[in-house]
Amino acid sequence: MEEIKVFCPATIANVSCGFDVLGLALDAVGDEMTVRKTAKKGIAITKIMGQDLPLETAKNVSGVAGMALLEKSGYQGGFEIEIDKKIKPGSGIGSSAASSAGAVWAMNELLGKPFSNLELVKFAMQGEKLASDVAHADNVAPAIYGGFTLVRSYDPLDVISIPTPSELFATVIHPQIEIKTSDSRKILKTNITLEKGIQQWGNVGGLIAGLFKNDYDLIGRSLEDHIVEPIRSILIPGFDHVKSSAMGVGALGCGISGSGPSIFALSKGENVAQRVAESMKEVYGTIGIPFDIHISKINTEGVKRIA
Amino acid sequence: MEEIKVFCPATIANVSCGFDVLGLALDAVGDEMTVRKTAKKGIAITKIMGQDLPLETAKNVSGVAGMALLEKSGYQGGFEIEIDKKIKPGSGIGSSAASSAGAVWAMNELLGKPFSNLELVKFAMQGEKLASDVAHADNVAPAIYGGFTLVRSYDPLDVISIPTPSELFATVIHPQIEIKTSDSRKILKTNITLEKGIQQWGNVGGLIAGLFKNDYDLIGRSLEDHIVEPIRSILIPGFDHVKSSAMGVGALGCGISGSGPSIFALSKGENVAQRVAESMKEVYGTIGIPFDIHISKINTEGVKRIA
Repeated sequence: MEEIKVFCPATIANVSCGFDVLGLALDAVGDEMTVRKTAKKGIAITKIMGQDLPLETAKNVSGVAGMALLEKSGYQGGFEIEIDKKIKPGSGIGSSAASSAGAVWAMNELLGKPFSNLELVKFAMQGEKLASDVAHADNVAPAIYGGFTLVRSYDPLDVISIPTPSELFATVIHPQIEIKTSDSRKILKTNITLEKGIQQWGNVGGLIAGLFKNDYDLIGRSLEDHIVEPIRSILIPGFDHVKSSAMGVGALGCGISGSGPSIFALSKGENVAQRVAESMKEVYGTIGIPFDIHISKINTEGVKRIA
Repeated sequence: MEEIKVFCPATIANVSCGFDVLGLALDAVGDEMTVRKTAKKGIAITKIMGQDLPLETAKNVSGVAGMALLEKSGYQGGFEIEIDKKIKPGSGIGSSAASSAGAVWAMNELLGKPFSNLELVKFAMQGEKLASDVAHADNVAPAIYGGFTLVRSYDPLDVISIPTPSELFATVIHPQIEIKTSDSRKILKTNITLEKGIQQWGNVGGLIAGLFKNDYDLIGRSLEDHIVEPIRSILIPGFDHVKSSAMGVGALGCGISGSGPSIFALSKGENVAQRVAESMKEVYGTIGIPFDIHISKINTEGVKRIA
């Protein structure tokens, strides 16, 4: 195989209680990338559609992630990358992760799969480091593994696949305001009370158990975040209203996607997810902030070949 | 049924990463209680064998827990309780929880099971409150439900049963030193770093996932506690040595049982649990502290009828 076209899913990191450890992949929104082998060493980003992003390898997350893989691979040639960037950077649904994960996954396919998913996550984390100064894995892990993932530990990196109940749907609304990931990290407190920590790890345990048991009600009860959401939600106009509206029409839970400004809700069944979308739209329609909105099944495959 | 004799299992609370939320029940060690219906109102503790504990209802955990049930039940009679107390109070393996859980479970049977397991946990928590000033549920929940339990939330109380891999064995050593639960809570810090919180909820998620997946290696990797163990272990002479010895002979993980001083290890298979026991004995033999030691399968039933 000399060329491959892949779908690179958007992802929701944190998933309320799981700050820095949990993430899930979406089906209905993602980038498309075409990656081809070249005789020339190194990585050339030849075309980016949809967004104004740097073509220079060292300044593009897919270039940096790809170079991390290329250096380890022993491959003497290089790659060209074309990106159809459908996820808006800064939206909080893993835009940089999709490009990073897609690049390394596609290259791995073209090289005959020398690397494991865990190694691909490590390469893709280099792209995340470029994007936000922190080599976090909570978006790239679900982008590569698909479904829900738990980053149990960073040192050593330990990524656990968690099963996805089949009727689980996500609704994600992206109000068009800008929040930088690095800014939204800075406002977090470096200390938390032990009491809130206990609540949080109780909820993480509950969410993981709910996903294994297909217990939608338990999933809903566990989608709480008493640590990060109360702080970060201040940066998102209308957050409380969106959340109460979504919960009012039957969402299992609702929270900030990654570092925001996107807000996600999880629902049992597409009909509920659709009602949640309508309720969210109405809030931002009233406030007068433009938005994108997505309704999506959970993507259980991660990055996948489309051509 | 007018009389019932029950086995009331010892329990391990916290299980390393799951401070205040996780617990498991043991098979090889527990109290035995005989509970019988009486025409006389109230609860009379008629006999306690094995330990010098108060017979007065209001001062005995089984009396207090039983009274909580009795008041809600509408039953016009009362109960007599005899306790064969095989778990040493203050050992850190849920001595008070066993008596509290056993009493309310037995009474519920005698009354024709009007109460759910969750309600029984709430009654038994009143016994815990008497014992340690805190109405914690992380011992009484596994004592009543059996297996591993997660107390996801206290308000409202939410107890989740977690499956138990069949080859999982616990080794518990109880060095004969006294630590009061209330003292071992006081030395904990009320704040933790967000960073340690993230590690902890990553590990709780990993442990729950490992238990569902029967992934012993993941269970082992997740049995870490960077928050409570470093502080509480100072109160337990030989802790680091016991832990390193247990890990050296193949334990999946090792930590403080509840608030100590007992130390537990989990192993895959009885043979490893036996080797772990030998390694632990050797440490306390050398230090010269007397000890009890137990090797036990995980008890998946909780309190059970034995006559």
